Amino acid sequence: MNSFGRKYRVSIFGESHGGAIGVVLDGVPAGIPLCEDDFMADLARRKSGQRGTTPRKESDQPVILSGLFNEKTTGAPLTVVFANENTLSGDYRNLVTHPRPSHADWVALQKYHGYADYRGGGHFSGRLTLGLVVAGVVAKKILKEISISSRILEIGGCTDSERWPDIVETAMKETDSVGGIIECRVENVPVGLGEPFFDSAESIISHLLFSVPAIKGVEFGDGFASARLRGSQNNDPIIAPSGQTSTNHAGGICGGITNGNPLVVRVAVKPTASIASPQQTLNTATGKVEELRIKGRHDACIALRAPVVIESAVAIGLADLWLLNR
Amino acid sequence: MNSFGRKYRVSIFGESHGGAIGVVLDGVPAGIPLCEDDFMADLARRKSGQRGTTPRKESDQPVILSGLFNEKTTGAPLTVVFANENTLSGDYRNLVTHPRPSHADWVALQKYHGYADYRGGGHFSGRLTLGLVVAGVVAKKILKEISISSRILEIGGCTDSERWPDIVETAMKETDSVGGIIECRVENVPVGLGEPFFDSAESIISHLLFSVPAIKGVEFGDGFASARLRGSQNNDPIIAPSGQTSTNHAGGICGGITNGNPLVVRVAVKPTASIASPQQTLNTATGKVEELRIKGRHDACIALRAPVVIESAVAIGLADLWLLNR
Amino acid sequence: MNSFGRKYRVSIFGESHGGAIGVVLDGVPAGIPLCEDDFMADLARRKSGQRGTTPRKESDQPVILSGLFNEKTTGAPLTVVFANENTLSGDYRNLVTHPRPSHADWVALQKYHGYADYRGGGHFSGRLTLGLVVAGVVAKKILKEISISSRILEIGGCTDSERWPDIVETAMKETDSVGGIIECRVENVPVGLGEPFFDSAESIISHLLFSVPAIKGVEFGDGFASARLRGSQNNDPIIAPSGQTSTNHAGGICGGITNGNPLVVRVAVKPTASIASPQQTLNTATGKVEELRIKGRHDACIALRAPVVIESAVAIGLADLWLLNR
Amino acid sequence: MNSFGRKYRVSIFGESHGGAIGVVLDGVPAGIPLCEDDFMADLARRKSGQRGTTPRKESDQPVILSGLFNEKTTGAPLTVVFANENTLSGDYRNLVTHPRPSHADWVALQKYHGYADYRGGGHFSGRLTLGLVVAGVVAKKILKEISISSRILEIGGCTDSERWPDIVETAMKETDSVGGIIECRVENVPVGLGEPFFDSAESIISHLLFSVPAIKGVEFGDGFASARLRGSQNNDPIIAPSGQTSTNHAGGICGGITNGNPLVVRVAVKPTASIASPQQTLNTATGKVEELRIKGRHDACIALRAPVVIESAVAIGLADLWLLNR
Repeated sequence: MNSFGRKYRVSIFGESHGGAIGVVLDGVPAGIPLCEDDFMADLARRKSGQRGTTPRKESDQPVILSGLFNEKTTGAPLTVVFANENTLSGDYRNLVTHPRPSHADWVALQKYHGYADYRGGGHFSGRLTLGLVVAGVVAKKILKEISISSRILEIGGCTDSERWPDIVETAMKETDSVGGIIECRVENVPVGLGEPFFDSAESIISHLLFSVPAIKGVEFGDGFASARLRGSQNNDPIIAPSGQTSTNHAGGICGGITNGNPLVVRVAVKPTASIASPQQTLNTATGKVEELRIKGRHDACIALRAPVVIESAVAIGLADLWLLNR
Repeated sequence: MNSFGRKYRVSIFGESHGGAIGVVLDGVPAGIPLCEDDFMADLARRKSGQRGTTPRKESDQPVILSGLFNEKTTGAPLTVVFANENTLSGDYRNLVTHPRPSHADWVALQKYHGYADYRGGGHFSGRLTLGLVVAGVVAKKILKEISISSRILEIGGCTDSERWPDIVETAMKETDSVGGIIECRVENVPVGLGEPFFDSAESIISHLLFSVPAIKGVEFGDGFASARLRGSQNNDPIIAPSGQTSTNHAGGICGGITNGNPLVVRVAVKPTASIASPQQTLNTATGKVEELRIKGRHDACIALRAPVVIESAVAIGLADLWLLNR
Repeated sequence: MNSFGRKYRVSIFGESHGGAIGVVLDGVPAGIPLCEDDFMADLARRKSGQRGTTPRKESDQPVILSGLFNEKTTGAPLTVVFANENTLSGDYRNLVTHPRPSHADWVALQKYHGYADYRGGGHFSGRLTLGLVVAGVVAKKILKEISISSRILEIGGCTDSERWPDIVETAMKETDSVGGIIECRVENVPVGLGEPFFDSAESIISHLLFSVPAIKGVEFGDGFASARLRGSQNNDPIIAPSGQTSTNHAGGICGGITNGNPLVVRVAVKPTASIASPQQTLNTATGKVEELRIKGRHDACIALRAPVVIESAVAIGLADLWLLNR
Repeated sequence: MNSFGRKYRVSIFGESHGGAIGVVLDGVPAGIPLCEDDFMADLARRKSGQRGTTPRKESDQPVILSGLFNEKTTGAPLTVVFANENTLSGDYRNLVTHPRPSHADWVALQKYHGYADYRGGGHFSGRLTLGLVVAGVVAKKILKEISISSRILEIGGCTDSERWPDIVETAMKETDSVGGIIECRVENVPVGLGEPFFDSAESIISHLLFSVPAIKGVEFGDGFASARLRGSQNNDPIIAPSGQTSTNHAGGICGGITNGNPLVVRVAVKPTASIASPQQTLNTATGKVEELRIKGRHDACIALRAPVVIESAVAIGLADLWLLNR
């Protein structure tokens, strides 16, 4: 469903071209200083604008509807909404007759028996991640001394960050798109977060990460590489009463429980599905395959905007586990 | 917590050396033919016995305590338990004073303030996956015509299956262990499983997969490789009214929703943490680092026994999504 | 928490004097015709205005923010908000220093460590039931042919409905308040709603009813009176293959499961806590007991406005059970 | 479903005449001293044996399967089972063809499409409350200094406890049954338990109480009587910084939140549905109404055995709210 969390529960609503998108945060402890400005830095990180991101500009102005009093959280649900402004009113019917490859257009219409709001991806739009960013800002305030950061490791298969602008530019020129890999790292994680059997720290965090559109892989610590190591190489010897290990192949999670070492998680972001190059797709009216040319404003590399969203998802999961574990 | 699922809810309990381990399955539709023998084939796949797996032999005899009448499910909770038999009564106190690297020993004692049952890994033991296998068998019966299979892709970094016995044998001789990569594939998946925003098919399945001990990475379709493709390479054109796509880079999930194509997921299994080679670890009594030699019976390659467990986790997730979506 | 429901999940947010109050409805099936006007009839039933209800007038105009497209539900979360308009800006600090007897003022400040929004009762205000009414309207649309109605049985201990205006008028003149008893009746209930062990139809419905402010008792069928009957008097013989019983002492629920007979539930509404008569309360600043005189606009008999709220709570519970049981 | 609770989660399984009935308790804090004997006092209170209760004798011996180590809880799920011993092997098919009035026989077979285990009421049997009693014993240990007690207020409509044996005896002689009213009272309740909007203390407790078979009404404090009081009579003035009120019409819950005063709740227990007197019921094979004579061993007054069950349900709810609120 559109909610997640046992003690810090995040509920997301809205569609790309509806009245508003927003988020309700339940379980926020009372007394946390907060104002709308507190969201702006992370919202800016998510914003389009740089080369390779969509030229659709939204003010993305958060409005707090509930849960705040005298600039502090009250303990009641915190609701934040964003009006949808820059919605081009063009004809979106072609998303019904010609569903875009690797978009949710077709599955959404099937799942909701033709009633889904298909404009701009509707409820499946990446715009919904605005709510995740808001929830992440509050989560980071809940987590206080725990620090979370994320960075791009790869764009278009390349790890050399100086070449990324060229890679994106080239993809744009060729009316194509590229993906990327993002790493999120958390320092000062308390020992003991995560719950057996089903709510391992990895389970909770991956659940949230795979909610983010375009994520196709999640790995912790050495992840897939650890499957190619021997036990003697992969094991992390404990070397201090704090639980510090001399290596951190496990990425800070052992038996599903945080062990006090830095939590390290990486995600694979697929290349943007919206490309201007001609593609084949089904004409749902005729049942025949036809050529599709997607127009409009798109990100050539959504991974450029994803780090703050990944960071937010991780923060949300940790905030819930932390509140549960107190 | 130790439960997962909204309509098909699986609850796991037990410890490696306690009275019994077991599972309660809530939400099982009434009228499904079932008997204890139905579990034996999948339990056998999980069993040790082949080279490279632990010589600890358990009869692993499932006993159905509730939820069955006249050899059919009743709609009431189905409870299955396994007595713990072959528990060596040796002194396990050294797991407290000398926690094994990359095992849950240390985090469990921290999390539960010294009260965790540490014998044989206690509640963190891989033995708990017996309950997953039981839940998977029932899930597959719920899913009827959906077919789920899994296979090993790599052992110790090698994709040539003929070399796997040698790789495992060598690791054993060198008192070491190896990991592996397992792929699970689901055919005849209905369109529309998965729920926005947070309960994407990938979210639910990864949540369950990361509950399985030793799993450190999960990817769908091309996964991490898709981050290195261009959109024009990674997109899957829809070519038939059934939703069939000409390629399946997405692994059957688009926008978090199954699109009717085969669901493909891969997991990374880390090398077994228990190795006989000497390792460093903390003496928790003295606070000093000492050499540890783990004795006892262990799997040199747990990945050999994992395919049925991975398959079960996927089946559980799909059964829940399927029952929700009816 | 502020959410309830497994398949039809209702999340309530807002405070009496904050920016807005609202509700998010998750799990609404796609394709249900809906517009803002559909809420007006039930909202009008909840409105103040008649004698004995508060003169605070709000336009109570629902605004649908998400989940609707082409005047039909989309399957995505349906969000409805109400701006808070008629909020007197007076000094509410006296609710902190002099908590009103039998109001949530004191417990809210304790629970939220002084950070609760106390203005007009904040998140504990009866105004939050606007969200319940909205959720009830949608629930009734989900339930289609099931018909739900409610009526007042007693006001101020009197069952003669012609005397109620006098009773309320007299209470007002004497700066006092009265309570009442409301009965909700559901016809055409399908057999089989309710889930053992914990989610009996009575459990789900009472859970929702006791969320409504001022409700202090809930009984089904003959309720407390059945405790004074003999089994031979209280048993309901089944007399038709439909499950029809010759009597309905059980109120349509047997073993926690609906049996196809009319569901009957009654609630006790306590007299409004806000009365203009002088009362004793604690001065939280001095720790001494002082006389309190509550000013402002209040309902002398909140039971007059409650039937639609009770009906909504019952409809929400049944919609969830019905969607779970399909 | 058969689970309840967010942090202290109780899962009930079993049928009256199956292999065993039992309970899994998840979220039990580690380190609580516990052994099987600790359950015996409360199990004895629930036991039959006194006049007016069923002569079916079971040893009701709890067996702890998991979650205990060195006589202390481990933090892992605590599982307790009871073997079903004294099951008469008679022909129960008549419960299918002639469902007992006001029993779950008919609804169970409808709901589960004929597959329910109908022997002795199956999963709807009062025997399942053994699990509640176990969960209640552990809940009371979690709640430590909070003290919970319950007592019978009425049997067969009579409040004079000295006459109760005669009332029950007479009912038995006349092959009939009687109901009763039970009050549960909790002292030393912390301020602040209960969560707006939906998880008021009354909502959580009534949810659990209405799970208990035969409960048809629940009221807090003055309950239905408060609907007949005026506000000036019903309000509870706060008279001390602890939150103490001079009266306690609210039964210790204000705005859905505990206010530190004694929590008082009453339930109506209907007369036992199983009576030996002839009754009318449907012959489901012929569709005709016939006379039914129930044989076997039954309680003439189940209310005599209910106080400990009611107390347990209240304890479970408070333990969950208390753990959530820490």
